[in-house]
Amino acid sequence: MCCSGDDPRRVERDNKPALISRLNRIEGQVRGINRMVQEDRYCIDILTQVAAVKSALDSLAMQLLESHARGCVADAVAAGDGAAAIDELMQVVRKLR
Amino acid sequence: MCCSGDDPRRVERDNKPALISRLNRIEGQVRGINRMVQEDRYCIDILTQVAAVKSALDSLAMQLLESHARGCVADAVAAGDGAAAIDELMQVVRKLR
Amino acid sequence: MCCSGDDPRRVERDNKPALISRLNRIEGQVRGINRMVQEDRYCIDILTQVAAVKSALDSLAMQLLESHARGCVADAVAAGDGAAAIDELMQVVRKLR
Amino acid sequence: MCCSGDDPRRVERDNKPALISRLNRIEGQVRGINRMVQEDRYCIDILTQVAAVKSALDSLAMQLLESHARGCVADAVAAGDGAAAIDELMQVVRKLR
Repeated sequence: MCCSGDDPRRVERDNKPALISRLNRIEGQVRGINRMVQEDRYCIDILTQVAAVKSALDSLAMQLLESHARGCVADAVAAGDGAAAIDELMQVVRKLR
Repeated sequence: MCCSGDDPRRVERDNKPALISRLNRIEGQVRGINRMVQEDRYCIDILTQVAAVKSALDSLAMQLLESHARGCVADAVAAGDGAAAIDELMQVVRKLR
Repeated sequence: MCCSGDDPRRVERDNKPALISRLNRIEGQVRGINRMVQEDRYCIDILTQVAAVKSALDSLAMQLLESHARGCVADAVAAGDGAAAIDELMQVVRKLR
Repeated sequence: MCCSGDDPRRVERDNKPALISRLNRIEGQVRGINRMVQEDRYCIDILTQVAAVKSALDSLAMQLLESHARGCVADAVAAGDGAAAIDELMQVVRKLR
């Protein structure tokens, strides 16, 4: 569920635990890259890890974007003020490119 | 400097401290996103932070790629075995897209 | 306007002439790249043009995506079947990455 | 072969016919998108085609970039002035992102 409850800016997410564990993993991956730099590891190996973190962030972003579109945006449209919600959606789609 | 010294897989980087502090910052940003999810923050605010982390990783990757091309790849070409180094370079350019 | 009229799959666009002239320009750019290859032009010059065409396509896509979200998706949500429209929207957002 | 012959800015490519036929196809795809807009076709169908053209351009770019790295960049490094060639390479890698 997204954008439910009294404060529209608070978002109760069913998949909250899963999102948190993914973010913990991504944090660990970044720490791993840090260690590789500290250990003077080969550039290609480090860059391969950077690409993996980017791809993990991408898929997290798509999941959040989808649940936002289904929740907040759909609710806003149904409530008659979809224009602002779609503005926001498109701005973040552009930022994520 | 890149790919210097006896072990070609160890890379002494002049900008090592700067890379490490950037990675510390990125790690902090990911932790911040984690906190936003835990606090049920609005999706667009979280997605904006995810886009910022991706862009920080992108610029870190371009910096590493450039120093790798100038160091390891140029050294390999000069030593007569550039083909394998360019293979590696192109593979990681594709992964980072 | 988007997704108006009797056939929901036909889309009357106010900006149709502008879209057509942009696509004519993009077609001309691709023809230009073709000529550069035929004239054995320098790779970097050709790649710079390829990047320009990609960026023109990107901005065309964002414009179409925005008008689609405002039109078809909002209409579908208001008509009570937003889920399928949001599925479609997210699939194409992923393809355009 | 890339960057051979007397004029370093002229590039004789073994795969020239293949590149030209790919560019002809991409040109045809862009013309097809133009026709879809003229026929008021559904946004998602048009956007799917735009994504296909972008992906075709991406793969063309990677092929050109690879042959450039193997040819012009390697030749320049071997001739002792790799720095400028690697500058150029990195600039276009950034543009193509």
